[in-house]
Amino acid sequence: MKIICSKAELMKSINIVMKAVPSKTTMPILECILIDASKGVIKFTTNDMELGIETIVKGEIVEKGVIALEAKLFSEIIRKLADSDITIATDDKYQALITCENSKFNISGKAGDDYPYLPFVEKDHSISVSQFTLKEVIRQTIFSIAQNENNKMMTGELFEISDNILKVVSLDGHRISIRKIELKENYEHRKVVVPGKTLIEISKILSGEVDDIVNIYFTKNHILFEFDDTIAVSRLIEGDYFRIDQMLSSDYETKLTVNKKELLNCIDRATLLIKEGDKKPIIIGIDDTNMELKINSQIGSMNEHIEIQKEGKDILIGFNPRFLIDALRVIDDETIQIYLVNSKAPCFIKDETESYIYLILPVNFNV
Amino acid sequence: MKIICSKAELMKSINIVMKAVPSKTTMPILECILIDASKGVIKFTTNDMELGIETIVKGEIVEKGVIALEAKLFSEIIRKLADSDITIATDDKYQALITCENSKFNISGKAGDDYPYLPFVEKDHSISVSQFTLKEVIRQTIFSIAQNENNKMMTGELFEISDNILKVVSLDGHRISIRKIELKENYEHRKVVVPGKTLIEISKILSGEVDDIVNIYFTKNHILFEFDDTIAVSRLIEGDYFRIDQMLSSDYETKLTVNKKELLNCIDRATLLIKEGDKKPIIIGIDDTNMELKINSQIGSMNEHIEIQKEGKDILIGFNPRFLIDALRVIDDETIQIYLVNSKAPCFIKDETESYIYLILPVNFNV
Repeated sequence: MKIICSKAELMKSINIVMKAVPSKTTMPILECILIDASKGVIKFTTNDMELGIETIVKGEIVEKGVIALEAKLFSEIIRKLADSDITIATDDKYQALITCENSKFNISGKAGDDYPYLPFVEKDHSISVSQFTLKEVIRQTIFSIAQNENNKMMTGELFEISDNILKVVSLDGHRISIRKIELKENYEHRKVVVPGKTLIEISKILSGEVDDIVNIYFTKNHILFEFDDTIAVSRLIEGDYFRIDQMLSSDYETKLTVNKKELLNCIDRATLLIKEGDKKPIIIGIDDTNMELKINSQIGSMNEHIEIQKEGKDILIGFNPRFLIDALRVIDDETIQIYLVNSKAPCFIKDETESYIYLILPVNFNV
Repeated sequence: MKIICSKAELMKSINIVMKAVPSKTTMPILECILIDASKGVIKFTTNDMELGIETIVKGEIVEKGVIALEAKLFSEIIRKLADSDITIATDDKYQALITCENSKFNISGKAGDDYPYLPFVEKDHSISVSQFTLKEVIRQTIFSIAQNENNKMMTGELFEISDNILKVVSLDGHRISIRKIELKENYEHRKVVVPGKTLIEISKILSGEVDDIVNIYFTKNHILFEFDDTIAVSRLIEGDYFRIDQMLSSDYETKLTVNKKELLNCIDRATLLIKEGDKKPIIIGIDDTNMELKINSQIGSMNEHIEIQKEGKDILIGFNPRFLIDALRVIDDETIQIYLVNSKAPCFIKDETESYIYLILPVNFNV
């Protein structure tokens, strides 16, 4: 194999496929980038057996061929070479010679035949959204997936399509995040659970531009994202997602309107008094048009009040401050509505049209 | 005690004094910032028993007093408060109430009496340099102090003043870095060894501006840096510094002129093939107007050639690439001169006027 690509093109493609190189694996071949120049285009592939990424690299094929090169080393060599054309040539012993201006690197590769190709995905059912929207919706929900694998379903996010609405849901047993996105067309009903790790990696390589489109295809076991010169295929999490509708109620006893930034900054300050691993709640007291926030720990105490608008009853309720912070950080509205029932019932942060709903369970506290 | 300062002033002063808060200590009081508002100015002090820093904070003293507050917590609270005036009030039980707009923090402090004040330094002998120059000279030499404490003297830097020249030297047994700075005046001869750690911390709080001055005072056991509203006092390392003059020779068999950036980038690339802890040398062969750089390791091999100008003999010599990189990084000249004798003798990178000299010992290698 012999190919010539610009450093910029190589780096762009390497940065994309690196997202599916496993950090640890029992299959050394997966630590490689598969460079496939056997069929008229140069294609980079990586695959951690859950997520696989393939991207087309612009460049010239002088001699067709395939090789697998250790991803980290290959990436670092390319990054440190001069900003010029780079030639990658391999011999029949899988030795790769990487040449750029006066530099020559010689490294060992592996036969490409052993590399697990991406699963084939029938491109039947798809939806289109902008890369910006997909990147945003992941950011706005991903924090409330469960971190540990005890409940596999909680480590993923529900993607549910009904007519022209894409609903994305994540939950970890203490809170639920829901975002709804309006699509440009109507689609058949569909419900899949996408691994959180897939979404985290995908969102890193999405451009974030409103004008760039990503097509999403679904099969029974896989989801495929197609954008720019790249496709990313991921396994889905099998099984039925949690029934969240019965947890969502629109009854409330107290409704408040508060400046989001003021509330977020206040809670953020309060966390200074909580040591890692400590479970001190922040206690929120609503009294007329005043919200008082208090925290008391071994380190010290804090209290602060914020002006609010209120409908309904006064209330005293405690929360894990981290959960409030996570939700508030991803809401763009300047003022938000919070709905409360009593000190044992979940609180809802949501907008009028329910384009977002953040449900957070309260915690017990001693006054 | 009760003082009122703007958040900006507090943060500026905290960032300065934090540099002398020890990361671990057997004296808990040293983890505090001493706030002294007992004498008409607000002064912050920290002291890790080697380096001590004192800085004046602009603000209003409502009630005189002294308190020591846990540095990290105090710093984080101030940082997260609104950008406004902050009041710090203490009671006779050393409880501190920090108030800013609607936020109130209550934390425990300690009596200031226990805090070890900075040693008194007679301000007899001083030199003046710009903050820019001092910051630069530290950066250009600090990398070649020894990291481990086996030889205390090697963990410091020699500051030697002769007439109007300040010479700064560091060495670690494998290399020597020397920088000479022209001062505006003539000074009495003086030689001190300043702990490397002191210089690292000082250089972080120097402004780096050419127009800002720092006065440096010396006594037998201490060095004092005075700049802006801050003084920093450090112990000196006792004993005689190494006699380096006998190691510096101006004889050479080969002199080369090479583009610094080309050489640096090439060696930097070569290090990709060296695993952490491995001691593979980079081998430099000089042949007419050509410099060939080679490295061979388990990971792979690299070779590259760079055009140079040469006087004298051809030579083949090996170096620890790290040492070359460290020196080349801090040299600002576009082209540099390298002086070589033979493959066992040190190499010198220096300019015509010897405003800098970097001596690096070669290493053995097998061709």
